Amino acid sequence: MQRMAIDKTPEWQALLAHHRSLRETRMSDLFAADPSRAQKFTVRCGDIRLDYSKNRITGETMTLLRQLAQVADVKGWTGKFFRGDRINTSEDRPALHTALRQRTGTVAVDGKDVIAEIAAVRQRLYAFAGAVRDGTWTVHTGTRITDVVHIGIGGSDLGPRMVVEALRPSTAPIRVRFASSLDDAELAAALEQLVPASTLFIVASKSFTTPETLANARLAKQWLLTALKEEALVKGHFVALTSKPEEAKKFGVEAANIYPMWDWVGGRYSLWSSIGLPIALALGPEAFDRLLDGAAAMDAHFRETPFEANLPVTLGLLSVWYANFFGAETQVLLPYDWRLRLLPTWLQQVAMESNGKSVDRDGKPVSTATAPVVWGGSGNDGQHAYFQALHQGTHLVPADFLVALSGGANRAALLANCFAQSEALMGGRDAIAAGGPHKAMPGNRPSNTIIFPQLDAKTLGSLLALYEHKTFVEGCIWGINSFDQWGVELGKVLAARIEPELKAGAGTGGAHDASTAALIGAYRGKS
Amino acid sequence: MQRMAIDKTPEWQALLAHHRSLRETRMSDLFAADPSRAQKFTVRCGDIRLDYSKNRITGETMTLLRQLAQVADVKGWTGKFFRGDRINTSEDRPALHTALRQRTGTVAVDGKDVIAEIAAVRQRLYAFAGAVRDGTWTVHTGTRITDVVHIGIGGSDLGPRMVVEALRPSTAPIRVRFASSLDDAELAAALEQLVPASTLFIVASKSFTTPETLANARLAKQWLLTALKEEALVKGHFVALTSKPEEAKKFGVEAANIYPMWDWVGGRYSLWSSIGLPIALALGPEAFDRLLDGAAAMDAHFRETPFEANLPVTLGLLSVWYANFFGAETQVLLPYDWRLRLLPTWLQQVAMESNGKSVDRDGKPVSTATAPVVWGGSGNDGQHAYFQALHQGTHLVPADFLVALSGGANRAALLANCFAQSEALMGGRDAIAAGGPHKAMPGNRPSNTIIFPQLDAKTLGSLLALYEHKTFVEGCIWGINSFDQWGVELGKVLAARIEPELKAGAGTGGAHDASTAALIGAYRGKS
Repeated sequence: MQRMAIDKTPEWQALLAHHRSLRETRMSDLFAADPSRAQKFTVRCGDIRLDYSKNRITGETMTLLRQLAQVADVKGWTGKFFRGDRINTSEDRPALHTALRQRTGTVAVDGKDVIAEIAAVRQRLYAFAGAVRDGTWTVHTGTRITDVVHIGIGGSDLGPRMVVEALRPSTAPIRVRFASSLDDAELAAALEQLVPASTLFIVASKSFTTPETLANARLAKQWLLTALKEEALVKGHFVALTSKPEEAKKFGVEAANIYPMWDWVGGRYSLWSSIGLPIALALGPEAFDRLLDGAAAMDAHFRETPFEANLPVTLGLLSVWYANFFGAETQVLLPYDWRLRLLPTWLQQVAMESNGKSVDRDGKPVSTATAPVVWGGSGNDGQHAYFQALHQGTHLVPADFLVALSGGANRAALLANCFAQSEALMGGRDAIAAGGPHKAMPGNRPSNTIIFPQLDAKTLGSLLALYEHKTFVEGCIWGINSFDQWGVELGKVLAARIEPELKAGAGTGGAHDASTAALIGAYRGKS
Repeated sequence: MQRMAIDKTPEWQALLAHHRSLRETRMSDLFAADPSRAQKFTVRCGDIRLDYSKNRITGETMTLLRQLAQVADVKGWTGKFFRGDRINTSEDRPALHTALRQRTGTVAVDGKDVIAEIAAVRQRLYAFAGAVRDGTWTVHTGTRITDVVHIGIGGSDLGPRMVVEALRPSTAPIRVRFASSLDDAELAAALEQLVPASTLFIVASKSFTTPETLANARLAKQWLLTALKEEALVKGHFVALTSKPEEAKKFGVEAANIYPMWDWVGGRYSLWSSIGLPIALALGPEAFDRLLDGAAAMDAHFRETPFEANLPVTLGLLSVWYANFFGAETQVLLPYDWRLRLLPTWLQQVAMESNGKSVDRDGKPVSTATAPVVWGGSGNDGQHAYFQALHQGTHLVPADFLVALSGGANRAALLANCFAQSEALMGGRDAIAAGGPHKAMPGNRPSNTIIFPQLDAKTLGSLLALYEHKTFVEGCIWGINSFDQWGVELGKVLAARIEPELKAGAGTGGAHDASTAALIGAYRGKS
């Protein structure tokens, strides 16, 4: 059956008309008119509270957006997603990161239950992490591990790195560092002050062919070999996380140190899988369990809660509202907990790699804008940097504020800043009150505020699942497959072609535009 | 004289018409039609080379853009800027960060030459940094310094942090760390494993009233006091960088340890001033001099080079071209050197705080879009995250690629990736060649490539000045004062009002919208 393009549906058209009627309305007038507005537009999942009342919406907006979700069959797609249908059609596989968080029941892939399989792998992983942490696992010389360097890039890096940076305690038996890019300055920085004899390397690559990851793994091997002298000793310092164990063995990783990944886990959703090993090492298996619990709680909330009270659905619909009706090209994510500073970097991949596409599930060109640019960082720091543009710039940038209600010496001041910013963005200040036109603030700038009692593993798990599912909801509305990433292929092909040309002394074999040819020439001539 | 709004000028109108004629043109056709295109659209400053040929431009585009620069009087404003005119009219002062890089001649502020004054302060600063580095400067107990924690936020943090992260050698006599936000988890992380007796704190705040900075400075004092016991000993561990020495003294900093800032240096341009002390400590005074040399070289290039060959003017005009004619709301900055990973964070402040404004110099509303959102990060990492959206998403995101031609073990592979990405963004791939519509890449996506022989202090200085001046050129075109930041004031006022309300046990005094009131209530009830 030919699906109707989403922007041709009556639901979309109704939103267009509604937008025209609402676009000049000021949020402060809506607050003045309805004393229950804050309450009406606040939803919860456990002790996570989303206040979305500071948005340019009325009750009718939300009703119309939910009707859009109905016509896009968000409910139906969610069912397919969770039960393991092959919704990643271009790669002909399911997207089952949620199964990694599900510890009861069954989920079948090719007629085989994966829940038991996941549990078995995780048990191995936890046993390993526990043994490294308590020193019962040692390398062949009998030395216990003090430091771990995780080598991976993209999905094999951003999730674990973000979680470890968010939750690592100041004293831990194992220190975990990360190296991702081809620039060996990064690995060199990670290796500073490390002792080879007590350093373990994790090599995380689903395909075990990622050039960045293998290049760093080779440098790590050299570093170990220089110190340990014997190849046989080096082997014991490597762990591989991959769905290609044979490739890992070829690299020299011992079979016992290889942990599997599954085809049905996309890289950007892989922190819940074996790729999460650095999390278990840095924080302990118990914290990893809490992270999974938190995600599972959000999964259940997303599956079972009516749209009206559903956090991921609400965030997804608001995202569509600004991206498609107000034409906002970006969204800013502003955690006020410094420990969450890498959340925007993680979400960039989840949101933009999932939905940064121009064709729909059926391969037809989309007729709406898709994934906005996600950016942001520590909100308190942002105040002293780019908030000027959020307040007085010419672009509408919907913001998500996130903050824990407790934690640390200056929490009240931190919260005051967080709450003050959304208040200022909404309220603004006119030129007369401000004392001049350059001090005026237009206001009426939308934001969500997400608060939670404290930042712990369970809460973080829920927050990550919240944004994963928000992204899924957006993808449903836009009618796209959120689980492939074909757009990154061409760059890989071209890089593989250019690299030997850079190294060759003589004329290039490839046909390049004159600019690329000149850049290649510049390297050769080191001009 | 009433200035004509820039978008009402014949030059702007000519660009609008030109845009209409060019917007369907493919860059690959322009390359095919003109073998000299790469050469024609490459400009240099010293050994920094900007290839801007992969942009959606023709020779005529650049001619029209330069005419726009003429009518906006970029040349005239540049003259005023460098000679110290009070171009920051809303704060009635000059913007003279360029004077900090100028080591000859004179620049008068209020009839007084500042070049000699700058030299005198810098000499003190270098002597101090040198003495700390060689251990001849000690705290009162005679202990030499091993670690420095720099406390500052916004402009007092981003510049020094970025430069130190970019250039710090693996072995240095002094390790420098940074703490900026109110979340004390950040300072706690910076203090991990540090020894109070050999730790020096720099407190950097122009006004010495920045709440974040003072809160962290107080925590630092406590941390020292717990270890050192005596208040008198604590004092010697603080250095202040400020234009309010009296306030620093009140905090307990000794007069000899206070280094001045000037009113005519904006926070976001202050790394060249005393705020650069952590750079001098981490890298040495000589490297700081090279950084200044590099910036001074770009300053001279910017002042003296005709528009046609001028790097900052070219980048600024291209920015306007996409922001105002193609309607691009963002720009992505993609350094391929991992050491430059904080460059986008630094530029966010420079670009968005400078030009994220809605009124012009005369206080009249602007009628064009101003500062786009700047985002980005390590380009090689981005390939495995958000590049999907750059290639196949629905938004036009002009990109700047930056890369050094030498450095490290995998440089050729890194360059191959960098060059391949701009090639892929431009060229794209049609559905048939790609093997399906979901694999098709639209291409025709613009980028600049900036290459340089190696990443050293001089090059970095030039790159920073390049982006500072690019931002200035944009501001000239948009007719705005790029040197104030009034948009951040209201948030500060509201935060100061909310903080006591959070701490008070009883009813709030302030009048807030119901959402803000509920958020305040959530903290009080810890619900």
